[in-house]
Amino acid sequence: MSDAERRVRESFAKQAFMGLLGARLARVAPGEVDIELPFRADLVQQHGYLHAGVTAAIADSACGYAALSLMPADAAVLSVEYKVNMLSPAIGRRFLAMGRVVKSGRTITVVRCEVLAFDDHDDARPVLAMLGTMISAKGRGIVD
Amino acid sequence: MSDAERRVRESFAKQAFMGLLGARLARVAPGEVDIELPFRADLVQQHGYLHAGVTAAIADSACGYAALSLMPADAAVLSVEYKVNMLSPAIGRRFLAMGRVVKSGRTITVVRCEVLAFDDHDDARPVLAMLGTMISAKGRGIVD
Amino acid sequence: MSDAERRVRESFAKQAFMGLLGARLARVAPGEVDIELPFRADLVQQHGYLHAGVTAAIADSACGYAALSLMPADAAVLSVEYKVNMLSPAIGRRFLAMGRVVKSGRTITVVRCEVLAFDDHDDARPVLAMLGTMISAKGRGIVD
Amino acid sequence: MSDAERRVRESFAKQAFMGLLGARLARVAPGEVDIELPFRADLVQQHGYLHAGVTAAIADSACGYAALSLMPADAAVLSVEYKVNMLSPAIGRRFLAMGRVVKSGRTITVVRCEVLAFDDHDDARPVLAMLGTMISAKGRGIVD
Repeated sequence: MSDAERRVRESFAKQAFMGLLGARLARVAPGEVDIELPFRADLVQQHGYLHAGVTAAIADSACGYAALSLMPADAAVLSVEYKVNMLSPAIGRRFLAMGRVVKSGRTITVVRCEVLAFDDHDDARPVLAMLGTMISAKGRGIVD
Repeated sequence: MSDAERRVRESFAKQAFMGLLGARLARVAPGEVDIELPFRADLVQQHGYLHAGVTAAIADSACGYAALSLMPADAAVLSVEYKVNMLSPAIGRRFLAMGRVVKSGRTITVVRCEVLAFDDHDDARPVLAMLGTMISAKGRGIVD
Repeated sequence: MSDAERRVRESFAKQAFMGLLGARLARVAPGEVDIELPFRADLVQQHGYLHAGVTAAIADSACGYAALSLMPADAAVLSVEYKVNMLSPAIGRRFLAMGRVVKSGRTITVVRCEVLAFDDHDDARPVLAMLGTMISAKGRGIVD
Repeated sequence: MSDAERRVRESFAKQAFMGLLGARLARVAPGEVDIELPFRADLVQQHGYLHAGVTAAIADSACGYAALSLMPADAAVLSVEYKVNMLSPAIGRRFLAMGRVVKSGRTITVVRCEVLAFDDHDDARPVLAMLGTMISAKGRGIVD
């Protein structure tokens, strides 16, 4: 395991909210992090689909860690902002958020993510697209 | 209680994910919905702040219901997309997402939200700003 | 030339603002439209880079026409919203906005765009990423 | 005239693209900048409305200068990203982009803007809402 992957995995383990959702790190590579989430009935909105806040949350974490994987060892990562489009009702047995670095910089890293939903036959369908901005922070807040 | 408020409250009660977070509807008025969330240690990201996915999720629900409150009785609401800026580390005892309709239309409703964090002295600080798009759907998916 | 391409080209010809910028349709295919823009000194912001509003404008048009290319013959297209990230200073001899449909639906079409800058050696560098939402409108406003 | 206003006005004068559009600085105050644009027939899209790229461009500049007005004297400002919602067809005799700082920080400034359209009777209607992110840069690119 690379140093970057170790830092990503240690940080992810501290994200209590990812634990509450039942999300797990599926893959860590330079600039690329996948997070997997099994469907659970307590994660839905009023129509029984996965809540957009849940799909966006795993996408946000996948993007943050994709950015962190390319940062220096002493850096921390914070989400500056992101935008999500819901592409289809988030129905499925499991979901995969694939965070990717679009452009990596000293201060700012631009990221994107696609979330796929897998049905009973493990066929995939895109349910969310994200485009966002991460910042390399060392004990700093987002806006400071 | 108005018909619109009743519809919002009935729909919110079906959002299992809001229950998992411990969020509750604090206020429902035409075009304005507030959702309150007490801090809980299992909702945090790696630095101990509320996960951006959590603040965004209550903002998304507040915006969706602000939009729904102005829609016809047989309408359903779905999030098309939203964008969030994190303004400060989301630290506090409780959080309040204030969803507001910017422009309401037959198909599309534009919404915004501010999330405030309240500290031990109940002083408020803005932690998130959202600008998003809701669609009036009747059994339809988001993109169809 | 397909009917869809003819409709895109006829509509583009009516965009007086694209004419003012000196932009031209470089390529029209189903769900894919490229717009090219030569650099011009009156299109810059205060640091001499192409103004973000210019790169975003050609990206918006490329996305709108990529969406229109998949719509029925009697449809019109309007931008509901978009988000852009600036990736690098927009310096170059010419720029190419590549609009692509992410998900096409009856009402809503989700689109993305990358704008490349080409230098004196015609080497390309990405300068802007867009993620946005188009609506199929027939004489309607955006929010109605 | 304050030093901040002088810096904003000097920088605006260098934005050749604002000159091409015919935009002018209407008001500069700490954290608040308004840009005015008279309608012109060569600024339209295919339906005869002001092109979304034009309204977004004056909003982007208004936001950038609102951010710059609160920055130290030696700072430069760059747009990291922004998101716009089109609220109504941009029809009018003149347009006013009102850029406002939401949260100002050492590195990142979060901004918002509303663009109003004024009709023949000088009645105003909102046509665009923006939420975006500016960065304080000193000779740096956006992502570096």
